[in-house]
Amino acid sequence: MNLILLRQQDHWPSASVVELVDQRAEHIRTVLRSSCGDRLRVGLLGGHQGVALIEAIDSRHVRLKVSLDEAPPPRHRFDLVLALPRPKMLRRILRTVAEFGVSHLHLINSARVEKSYWQSPLLGQERLEEALMAGMERASDTVAPKVHLHPRFRPFIEDQLASIAAGRPCWITAPGASMALADAPAGDAVVMVGPEGGFVPFELALACLHKARPAHLGQRILSVDTALTTALAQGAINLGCRSTPG
Amino acid sequence: MNLILLRQQDHWPSASVVELVDQRAEHIRTVLRSSCGDRLRVGLLGGHQGVALIEAIDSRHVRLKVSLDEAPPPRHRFDLVLALPRPKMLRRILRTVAEFGVSHLHLINSARVEKSYWQSPLLGQERLEEALMAGMERASDTVAPKVHLHPRFRPFIEDQLASIAAGRPCWITAPGASMALADAPAGDAVVMVGPEGGFVPFELALACLHKARPAHLGQRILSVDTALTTALAQGAINLGCRSTPG
Repeated sequence: MNLILLRQQDHWPSASVVELVDQRAEHIRTVLRSSCGDRLRVGLLGGHQGVALIEAIDSRHVRLKVSLDEAPPPRHRFDLVLALPRPKMLRRILRTVAEFGVSHLHLINSARVEKSYWQSPLLGQERLEEALMAGMERASDTVAPKVHLHPRFRPFIEDQLASIAAGRPCWITAPGASMALADAPAGDAVVMVGPEGGFVPFELALACLHKARPAHLGQRILSVDTALTTALAQGAINLGCRSTPG
Repeated sequence: MNLILLRQQDHWPSASVVELVDQRAEHIRTVLRSSCGDRLRVGLLGGHQGVALIEAIDSRHVRLKVSLDEAPPPRHRFDLVLALPRPKMLRRILRTVAEFGVSHLHLINSARVEKSYWQSPLLGQERLEEALMAGMERASDTVAPKVHLHPRFRPFIEDQLASIAAGRPCWITAPGASMALADAPAGDAVVMVGPEGGFVPFELALACLHKARPAHLGQRILSVDTALTTALAQGAINLGCRSTPG
């Protein structure tokens, strides 16, 4: 945790004082081993970040005097469309997506997505948020990626992809494509990543009929989690950020 | 599996015919659903790759007529030095390192590495190889990264780092460094990645006294697995490969 995330629904005895009693208090006591008078990095979920002074700390609670005057870091220039991976991998991917500061993650169906994945408890709002916060705490971000679920492939591609792209290019990762994603022009874009084994030819063709253009991630076929991180890592080089650094 | 890996110690009735009875036979039957006369991608562990014709298949075994005439794909230009991560993460990292075709992975100690990690059964030769092969099968590679264990930090840095680098630059990833790894010159290099929480200042200083130079991976602090994949993804763009593509 490089940042303790605070929420508006936490207990705020005054506008700049917050009292924590849950695992964040535990983390401050036992992992950071902080004491009264120490300062910590904190951020308000969805808002600004800054520094907190520990005013009181005991075995039950931690009281922080908070000063939030820094904007969150800039967002990543890519929005993502990803074929829903198996739950164990999804949890890590949510963390990664939050670490990179992705604005929107669209989880879609595909022929190679197992139907049972859509029943995963991880797709519940609370569990999604928990997985994202692990990445935000790591990367000192206060803004959570927005996760959108699209359990039907064809309506998503035919009715939504173009409007989601909203004038930005849309790249679909495909081994053997003639263009490298790394050579795509700087600036915002949407990047689509398939399931293990890739999109089936029909899906690739339909996506390309509706806005998407193929791009490869290198000469090697990568697992979904490696491919997704690779796209974000290569996209982070040309820092076409949407907002200014805080 | 995009490639079935064969071994010299498999049962070879003749120089170009191999019989499989283990989980590879099971994979060919139940996942690939192949039948007699079908062709598969195969490779010899440590050797060439090519195509195999299924000559016979039944519930017990699969007999393949093998033709291996393609060189393995080129290696990644980075060798890695990584503070030993927790076993669960290490398994995935081994897969990723194999997917990218890294030649050498040096696992080292660090103040923030838990001692118990060095006792993990995953560090046994057989388990290491199994984890690497998952990545090689994904990326169609026949060459396994070589994994080296260095359970003492200081002797590794003082006595081995410079000779391992062997004239190549050595970058140590550090948030806030003035240079981006993505801006490092093309060509072979050694890249060092710390544990969660980073190398401690003494370690960073000692490494920099012995050859290493700091480089950052972007504006955000990343988890170890994300950071490692990011370094490899960014290093794969300037394809300073050591061998020619097969």
